[in-house]
Amino acid sequence: MTRIALGIQYDGSGWHGWQSQPHGRTVQDALEIALARFADQPIRTACAGRTDTGVHALGQVVHFDSDATRTLQGWVRGINALLPASIAVAWSAEVAPIFDARFDAVARTYHYLLLVQPYRSPHWVGRAGWTHTPLDVDAMHAAAQGLVGTHDFSAFRAAECQAKSPVKTMTVASVRRSGDFVLLTFRASAFLQHMVRNLTGALVAIGRGAKPRDWLADLLAGRDRTVSAPTFMPDGLYLARVDYRDGIVLPVPPSFAAIHAGFPA
Amino acid sequence: MTRIALGIQYDGSGWHGWQSQPHGRTVQDALEIALARFADQPIRTACAGRTDTGVHALGQVVHFDSDATRTLQGWVRGINALLPASIAVAWSAEVAPIFDARFDAVARTYHYLLLVQPYRSPHWVGRAGWTHTPLDVDAMHAAAQGLVGTHDFSAFRAAECQAKSPVKTMTVASVRRSGDFVLLTFRASAFLQHMVRNLTGALVAIGRGAKPRDWLADLLAGRDRTVSAPTFMPDGLYLARVDYRDGIVLPVPPSFAAIHAGFPA
Repeated sequence: MTRIALGIQYDGSGWHGWQSQPHGRTVQDALEIALARFADQPIRTACAGRTDTGVHALGQVVHFDSDATRTLQGWVRGINALLPASIAVAWSAEVAPIFDARFDAVARTYHYLLLVQPYRSPHWVGRAGWTHTPLDVDAMHAAAQGLVGTHDFSAFRAAECQAKSPVKTMTVASVRRSGDFVLLTFRASAFLQHMVRNLTGALVAIGRGAKPRDWLADLLAGRDRTVSAPTFMPDGLYLARVDYRDGIVLPVPPSFAAIHAGFPA
Repeated sequence: MTRIALGIQYDGSGWHGWQSQPHGRTVQDALEIALARFADQPIRTACAGRTDTGVHALGQVVHFDSDATRTLQGWVRGINALLPASIAVAWSAEVAPIFDARFDAVARTYHYLLLVQPYRSPHWVGRAGWTHTPLDVDAMHAAAQGLVGTHDFSAFRAAECQAKSPVKTMTVASVRRSGDFVLLTFRASAFLQHMVRNLTGALVAIGRGAKPRDWLADLLAGRDRTVSAPTFMPDGLYLARVDYRDGIVLPVPPSFAAIHAGFPA
């Protein structure tokens, strides 16, 4: 029995999130159907970040066990030939039998891509958030710095979130502009449900000038979801990469250029 | 009666091209349905460039006549509210009663966007061409310079092309790289059917090293479609902008940043 890790990319627009559901059209179901056909045996996967409905991935990581004899190259090409066009395998690697895509991860990085223009774009439907109001990106970036560190993120947590603790450690929070796009990037030990979309909603309110830039720190300190900004649409949200504990070396996920060359990796 | 011009953008993936068809799902049909609902009267449109199935537009221009009393802002917002998500109006302008979106145009600019990476990307399905082979962009750009000028482009013409003459004047032919993307840009008085996709196929063959860089000039001089490279997929093709004769001033189309901030306008 060999344990294999795969780097997975998907356009989540047409999928009911990652996690397998009895009657759902999910990325995990589609991947496991392709794996079973390629390996000629049922295969169950575990993933690093269980993305919600409509959320995309550039650097999702999964692991599974199989005794099927396939080359590493085969796991990529064979599964890609069987997957729908909205899901792809970027790389494969043989890992230790104790490797766990979820529990060995020490950090997840999410991007939120936002298009700022007066009218909606047909070219970014489902793949970028949209606002027609100009945004003060410097104010957003400054406000986001208050998120860095270890905090109780209850103010940005969905009511149905099942995480054991609302305390997470954020190491990167940045807001950048490139052309008509604004990119929000967050890296943390782990994320609560809807946390990035709730942070994006609050930061956009600050960027539009509807709220002062110290409002984010107030929200964070208040720990009260009911006074925060609305959850932003899932369209622009990408699981960009997963980092693992020392000693676990996996292929580097593709840079954000795979979506948008205007922003560096 | 007022003549109105509109700037139109669309993701052509799900459409059978621009031109109205009795039983086709076309961009013109969708636009005319939205216009008729908004103006409360039937409206017929004429466009600058009749794009094929699966081809996109950033800067399509149309004109129509109407005696409906609507503001210029209203033609944008009202029609956008009625159009499907894959089509949008970028701007509106009142034009002279003799303005013609097609016959007053002196140049069309097309982009072909190509993703170069080892595996297919779920994020660019239908919106970029894909090749897994590295490309020599300098060789492609050098070869493309031989297209500039007035030539008989029969070698790059579809069998079913209905243009009166195969002689066109090309003023821009460029091949640029940004990150994992290559962008081919062509500007000419007009284009023959499949001309950009045929030129892209030939330039990719040169970029892969399958053909020498003087092959393009040989093809052009030979005027024989049957010895050219295969027609490239429509996925990466965008009608980027239309230029009009002196004296006709229309809003500048949005830059390519609307798709991809990695390339300047």
